Amino acid sequence: MEHSLDEAHGGFLNCLDRDGTPFDTTKHVWLQGRQVWMLSKVFLERRDERYLDAARLGVEFLGRHAVGSDGRAYFALRRDGAPIALQRKIFSECFLVMAYAEFARASGDQSYRARALDLFDTILGLIEDPTRLGRPVLSGQTKTSELAVPMILLNLVAELRGEPGSETFDDREDYDRIEAECVAKVLRHFDAERGLVFETVGAGGERLLDSPAGRLLNPGHVIEAAWFLVQYAERVNDSALVDSSLAMMKGALDVGWDTEHGGLYYFLDSEGYSPTQLEWSMKLWWPHLEAMVGTLVAWRASSDARWFERFEQVASWAYERFPDPEHGEWFGYLDREGRVSQRFKGGPYKGCFHVPRALMLCERLLKT
Amino acid sequence: MEHSLDEAHGGFLNCLDRDGTPFDTTKHVWLQGRQVWMLSKVFLERRDERYLDAARLGVEFLGRHAVGSDGRAYFALRRDGAPIALQRKIFSECFLVMAYAEFARASGDQSYRARALDLFDTILGLIEDPTRLGRPVLSGQTKTSELAVPMILLNLVAELRGEPGSETFDDREDYDRIEAECVAKVLRHFDAERGLVFETVGAGGERLLDSPAGRLLNPGHVIEAAWFLVQYAERVNDSALVDSSLAMMKGALDVGWDTEHGGLYYFLDSEGYSPTQLEWSMKLWWPHLEAMVGTLVAWRASSDARWFERFEQVASWAYERFPDPEHGEWFGYLDREGRVSQRFKGGPYKGCFHVPRALMLCERLLKT
Repeated sequence: MEHSLDEAHGGFLNCLDRDGTPFDTTKHVWLQGRQVWMLSKVFLERRDERYLDAARLGVEFLGRHAVGSDGRAYFALRRDGAPIALQRKIFSECFLVMAYAEFARASGDQSYRARALDLFDTILGLIEDPTRLGRPVLSGQTKTSELAVPMILLNLVAELRGEPGSETFDDREDYDRIEAECVAKVLRHFDAERGLVFETVGAGGERLLDSPAGRLLNPGHVIEAAWFLVQYAERVNDSALVDSSLAMMKGALDVGWDTEHGGLYYFLDSEGYSPTQLEWSMKLWWPHLEAMVGTLVAWRASSDARWFERFEQVASWAYERFPDPEHGEWFGYLDREGRVSQRFKGGPYKGCFHVPRALMLCERLLKT
Repeated sequence: MEHSLDEAHGGFLNCLDRDGTPFDTTKHVWLQGRQVWMLSKVFLERRDERYLDAARLGVEFLGRHAVGSDGRAYFALRRDGAPIALQRKIFSECFLVMAYAEFARASGDQSYRARALDLFDTILGLIEDPTRLGRPVLSGQTKTSELAVPMILLNLVAELRGEPGSETFDDREDYDRIEAECVAKVLRHFDAERGLVFETVGAGGERLLDSPAGRLLNPGHVIEAAWFLVQYAERVNDSALVDSSLAMMKGALDVGWDTEHGGLYYFLDSEGYSPTQLEWSMKLWWPHLEAMVGTLVAWRASSDARWFERFEQVASWAYERFPDPEHGEWFGYLDREGRVSQRFKGGPYKGCFHVPRALMLCERLLKT
């Protein structure tokens, strides 16, 4: 808050050096949206108007600049809002939906809920017809399913519904169907026998083990998907799905934990080859935060103390290495051995989101 | 050669694990083209028909599959040649030109020289009008110049000309003009006072120091560009350009060398911020090979023994860490401390090119 609010142009400066100095004024829509969401959440928790004002600074900037005339959201904007980059992916739109929906809940301004629902329909259309993303369709390509897509869509519906039991809990007639489809799609990525969730499978769920993409494991992603699934399964009272989700999470923690240096790998190859991603062995902030949330979600869902032990293992490794004792906040990127590799606190993919979200969720889970 | 020739489908398997086992059958056009170039070069050096046959296996596969109906080259092909990926960049086309031109020289088949020249014209057209690459043009974008483009184009013209003094040395009326333009464009990236070459500057050469892209330094790239420039400057007898090129190279070696652990960083930020590239501190095979070639080129051009000392420094660091004593070849990717991070010998960006090219050039330079 102290360093990121851009009173001059609206929105947030999200590329902040170790001490909060901006090192880039580009505004990344993923992070602008996530910060609006987070500030709205904090306002709803604490009822301190400063958070709502900060969220408004972001949401109004996004409302003016983030969406182009074709209805798609840009990936990055110049400080003044002029567009710089458009991704051939749906995630900028997804994080805008979260921002609009949560800001509507925080502010009571239903026009943002309408924007969220419009954009949600745009996303459904893009998933239906991916050629609209502008990626060339070539004859040698295998039709694939990416874990990130049903996983984030499941989360989006949860965000649009709001918290079960709350007065703003909301419904739409297609939510149940979309959620059920997302769950089915996520489960196609899960090899229960091996305890592995593949990032990429064939469109019908086929294993693609002859390619690095088809063998790719992203333990942090799997843990996050698993706790989204547990939340859903608890709401709809599906105990078999709770069990599958916990098996997914256990598999990801087992395979993802670096037994030599501690911490969770970023990427692995299911068959033991070296991942082609150069950063595969780095230890990133967000998988550790997802694992802290996930193990507590699993502990509450199962009442099994071994999940709490895993929470302590992850949290103690992370707390020894990620927080910056001098300037506050967590560093984002450590090398395999756990040493700081990037000193900045905010970058193109690290913003005001994973750290506060996880701390807020962990606090709630530990209180109950 | 032992592991990569694909007798079944033509072309080369270029993703090879530590012991040569293929871990992916995708064929990356960059590397297919570079391997054809390399095998043609080796044939011209050794006159062993096996190299020409192997080059032909690659060049015929590329001739059948690499170029689409719009004249652009794909980035990646399936094992059988069906296209998988198209980049919004010109480099696949560039490495195909090199392959066709050198194979024509090795085989005497002038139809490949015609293909090279056609594709070279395609590249000139794409540089002239980058919107044809399919990248969206957005109102907030700054028009930039990327070092890689004039640098590779300068090298391409040198490849099309062939070796000065040889019987296949060739000319085209626009080569002189293109080369002079490339040199002028490369020099715009050079800040002589600070000894730094920026990867990205404004289209008119303006410094873009308020963005990570505008502060990005890639020492390996600069060293490679510098020895291309020296070669050109020597041919046209431009001693001032030799001096500038050596200053560029010296600057890159000074700023790029890791004084703590040795080796050349992959990326740096000119103002000392952390680069946003997660792999910035890794030590890659190719910058070290470029530095071995570059220091010898500089030594020969200047007769200054300090360049030979730098050669020895780089070569001894690299030879202690990159070669695999058990299975041969060099590893490609080391962490900052110099430990192997990726065990494979060939991947989507590492093929049969930098190691043999550098060894061949170093051998020649050391003989003279």
